[in-house]
Amino acid sequence: MESYKTLEKIFRKLNDIEQAQSSLHWDMAVTMPSGGATARGQQIATLTSIHHAIIADDGVGELIARAKSDESKLDEWQKANLFEMGKTYNHSAAVPRKLIHELTREGINCEMVWREARAKNDFGMLKPYLERVLKLVREKASIKAEAFGMSHYDALLDQYDRGRKSAQIDEVFDNLKEFLPDFIKAAVEKQAKEPKITELKGPFPIEQQKQLAHKILETIGFDFSHGRLDESHHPFCGGYPGDVRITTRYDENNFLSAIQGVQHEAGHAMYEAALPNKWRGQPVGHARGMSVHESQSLLLEMQVCRSQQFQEFAAPIYRDAFGGKGKAWSAENLYRICTKVEPSLIRVNADEVTYPAHILVRYYTEKFLISGDMEVADLPEAWAEGMEKFLGIKPEDDKNGCMQDIHWMDGTFGYFPTYTLGAIYAAQIFSAAKAANPDLLGQIEKGDLKQLMGWLGANIHEQGCRYSTDGLIEKATGKTLDVEIYKAHLKARYLGE
Amino acid sequence: MESYKTLEKIFRKLNDIEQAQSSLHWDMAVTMPSGGATARGQQIATLTSIHHAIIADDGVGELIARAKSDESKLDEWQKANLFEMGKTYNHSAAVPRKLIHELTREGINCEMVWREARAKNDFGMLKPYLERVLKLVREKASIKAEAFGMSHYDALLDQYDRGRKSAQIDEVFDNLKEFLPDFIKAAVEKQAKEPKITELKGPFPIEQQKQLAHKILETIGFDFSHGRLDESHHPFCGGYPGDVRITTRYDENNFLSAIQGVQHEAGHAMYEAALPNKWRGQPVGHARGMSVHESQSLLLEMQVCRSQQFQEFAAPIYRDAFGGKGKAWSAENLYRICTKVEPSLIRVNADEVTYPAHILVRYYTEKFLISGDMEVADLPEAWAEGMEKFLGIKPEDDKNGCMQDIHWMDGTFGYFPTYTLGAIYAAQIFSAAKAANPDLLGQIEKGDLKQLMGWLGANIHEQGCRYSTDGLIEKATGKTLDVEIYKAHLKARYLGE
Repeated sequence: MESYKTLEKIFRKLNDIEQAQSSLHWDMAVTMPSGGATARGQQIATLTSIHHAIIADDGVGELIARAKSDESKLDEWQKANLFEMGKTYNHSAAVPRKLIHELTREGINCEMVWREARAKNDFGMLKPYLERVLKLVREKASIKAEAFGMSHYDALLDQYDRGRKSAQIDEVFDNLKEFLPDFIKAAVEKQAKEPKITELKGPFPIEQQKQLAHKILETIGFDFSHGRLDESHHPFCGGYPGDVRITTRYDENNFLSAIQGVQHEAGHAMYEAALPNKWRGQPVGHARGMSVHESQSLLLEMQVCRSQQFQEFAAPIYRDAFGGKGKAWSAENLYRICTKVEPSLIRVNADEVTYPAHILVRYYTEKFLISGDMEVADLPEAWAEGMEKFLGIKPEDDKNGCMQDIHWMDGTFGYFPTYTLGAIYAAQIFSAAKAANPDLLGQIEKGDLKQLMGWLGANIHEQGCRYSTDGLIEKATGKTLDVEIYKAHLKARYLGE
Repeated sequence: MESYKTLEKIFRKLNDIEQAQSSLHWDMAVTMPSGGATARGQQIATLTSIHHAIIADDGVGELIARAKSDESKLDEWQKANLFEMGKTYNHSAAVPRKLIHELTREGINCEMVWREARAKNDFGMLKPYLERVLKLVREKASIKAEAFGMSHYDALLDQYDRGRKSAQIDEVFDNLKEFLPDFIKAAVEKQAKEPKITELKGPFPIEQQKQLAHKILETIGFDFSHGRLDESHHPFCGGYPGDVRITTRYDENNFLSAIQGVQHEAGHAMYEAALPNKWRGQPVGHARGMSVHESQSLLLEMQVCRSQQFQEFAAPIYRDAFGGKGKAWSAENLYRICTKVEPSLIRVNADEVTYPAHILVRYYTEKFLISGDMEVADLPEAWAEGMEKFLGIKPEDDKNGCMQDIHWMDGTFGYFPTYTLGAIYAAQIFSAAKAANPDLLGQIEKGDLKQLMGWLGANIHEQGCRYSTDGLIEKATGKTLDVEIYKAHLKARYLGE
C-alpha cells in the first residue's frame, strides 16, 4: 500500500508537469508571438526531460513492481490506476532522455516553421525540419517496438490509444476502403438529384460568429468559468479538467465552419471537464485514449449537431445571429448544408462521409513513413495519389495537400486513425444513448442536451481509465468496435436506407 | 572551468523552468478562467519545488565553490555570472523546500481570492488568505536573515534588488518624508493659481485606445514579433527576452490611464528585450534588479512621455485617434493633464509627485508587517493613517485602500521601495542621457526615441548583471543613488525652479 501511495504522489507531480506543458502548448498555438518560439521550445524540452527523469529514474519501476505484488489490497480504481501507471512507465522508461529531448525540440521547431511554410505554400522550406522529426520518431518507434514486442507502428498507436493494434485497424479500414468510394459516389448522386441547396450568403461578421459560438457552447453545457474559447490556426481542445480550452477559426464567408469546429472541440471539452473528480491528476483519472476522445467530439459534432433535429433548434438562433431571412435559413436547408457530401481537399472542413477517406490517405501514408517505405520527399506525390484514389480529387498545391495538418509536424504519428475509430464509436454510443433514452431526438430538437450529457457522463466521461477501451465501449454500448453500426448510420442519413 | 561550464548548463535549465513559470503566471493574470486556479497553483508549486531541488540538491553549492577557487580562468562576464549564481544559490538553498512549496501555493490562492475580494470590497474575505501568506513570508525572512546575517526585511529586499539595504532606503525615504508633504502642497497651490485645465471629454472607445497603444509602442520601438500587449487587472510586464509581454487596463472615460500604463510597462519591456543576447538564460544575462528595472519604466513613462516635448509629438496622434478638437487637445493642455498633481487613492493612477508618497505608506507598513509590529487585521487602519499622513486623504473603503495592490497577495514583500528607488535612478539616468545627447529633448519632440534607446541599451540594458546596481548606475551616470537629482527634477517640472 505504501508503494502505491508513493506512486500516487509521483504521478500527481508528473501530472502537474504535463498540465504546465499543455498550457505552454496552448499559449504557443493561441497567443505566443513568433519570436518566442526558441525559448518556448527549450522550456518544453526541459520540462519533458524533467518529466522523463522523474518517471524513468526515481525507482518508479521498482515501486510499480512492489505495488503490483501487493495488489490485492487495492480497490478496483486503484488497480486500474496502477495498471495505467505501469503502461505510462513502460512508454517513458523505454526511450532515452536525449531522444525525447531532441524530439520535443525538433517538433516545436518544425511546427513553427510549418506555420510559415504552409502560409507560403513552401514544402521545400518545411522538408528538412519534417525529415528531422520523422527520423527521431522512427528511432522512438523502433526502440519501443523492441521493448514491447510489437510492430513499430503499433508502438506509436499505443501512445495515443492504449492497446490499439494496426491489425484491428486494417480490418476495419479495409472494410471502409471497399465501402467508401462507392458510397461517396452514391451519396453525391442522390444529392445531385435533389433540389438545389440555397447557399447562405455572407459576410458573417466575426464578432457575431463569436457570440453565436458562445451561445452554442452554453447550449452544450460548456462552463466558461472552467474553460475558454479562442482562435488558432487549427481548431483544438487543450487544457485539463478545471480549465479546458477550445479553439476554432473564423471565416467571414462561412460561419458554419467555425461553429462546427466549436461543436467538435466542445465534445472533447465536455469529456475532459467531466472526468472523475476523485481521480484528478492520476493516470486512471485521464480520458480513455484518443479514439474514445474523438468519439465524444464526433458524437457531438456529427451525430447531434448535424442532425435534422438539431437544425430545428439551431435555425432560429442562426437567423438571429446574422439577421438571416428566407429559405436559405430554414432548418431543412441548413440540414442539407450540414450533410452535403462533396469530396474536397481539407480534412478539417470535410463532410461526415468523405472525412474517413481523408483518414485512409493519412493512415496508409504514415504507416509507410514509419516503416521506411516512404520518405518525406515522397509526400506530395503520395498524398496526391491517395486523394485521387479515395476521394477522386487531387490537391493543386501542398498547402491544401500534405502540409494542411499539424500532426506530423510535432512528431504525432499513429494518431490519425483515432479520428475514424472515434467516428465508429460515436455511432455506437449514440445508438446506445438513443436506446436508453427514446426521447433523445425530441430533446435535441429543443436544444436540451442535459440528459444526453448525463448519460455520457455516467457511461463514458466519469469512467476515466477505469476500463480498457474495449471494456468501456462494451459496457456502454453492448459491443466492442463495430464498423457496421457506423455504416448503418451513414446509409440511413445519406441514402435514406 | 569544467565546474563553471556544468553550472552554466544547470542554470540554463533553471532558466527554462523560470520562463515556464513566468508564462503560467502571465496566463493566470491575462487568460485563465477562475476555475483553473487550483490546478495552476499546483503546477507552479510543483515547478517551484523542482527548481528548488535542482539548485539546492544537485551539488550546486559544491560546484560554485570549486568554480570560485578556479576563478582566474574566467573572463569578467563569466566571473559576474558565477557571482550571481552564488547569490541565487544562497537564496534558494537557505529555505526548506516545503516552505517554498507552501508559499507558492498559498500565494496563488490568495491572489485568486484577492481578485474577487477586491471586486466585492470584502477585506474579511481576503484576511485569512493574506494572513497565511504573511506568516510564511515571515518564516522565510527569518530563515534568510539568519543565513545571510542581515535583518529580516533586508533579506527580503535582497531578493528583488541584490545588495539593497533598508538603512540606505531609510536615509533616502526620510529625506523624501520631509520633502514630499510640503512639496505636494506647493505644487498643488501653484497649479491652483494657473488657468483651469480643459478636461478631455470621453467616451474613448476601447478599440481606438488599443490601436493608439500599438502606435505608441511602435514609436517606442517595441517589437510585436517578440512581444504582446494585452489586458489585465493590474498592468504588468511579463515574459522574457524573445517574448516580452505587457498588459494594461482600459477605461472608456480616460484613455491616458491605459496609455501611461503602456508607456510604463514598455520601459520594462525594452529592458528585457535588449538584455545581452550572448548571455540569454544565464544569471548574468538577467536584468539588474527591480530598482533598475523600475528606472527604465519610469524613465519612459515619467521623464520622456510626460514631458512637454513628448506632448508636442503625441497631441496630433491623440487627436487623430479620438477625433479630438479644440483647446483640450493642445500639447500645452495635455502636458498640464499629465503633470497635474492631486493626492488620490490609487497608486497606479497617481501622478509623479504623489506617487512616492504612496510608496512611503507601503514601505513603512510592510516593514512593520514583517517585523511583527503589525498584523493583517491592522492593515485597513494603518493604511488610512499612512494615507492621511503622507497624502492628506483617506480611503473610504479597502478596495481603494489596502486591497488595491497585487504585491503582498502572492508574498511579494520588500518590493515596493524599488518603485521610488527606480524613480530616483530614472532622474539620474535621464539627466546623464541628456548630457550625452544635447539634442535629446528635440528628438523626443519628434517622437524619435532611437538615440535614447541606443544609449539606454549600451549603458543599461546590454550590461545585464555585469556590475552591481551601484556599479552600473555609477558607470552610466557618474553617481550612485542620489535623491537630490530626483528632487531637482521635481522642482524644475512642478515649481519651475
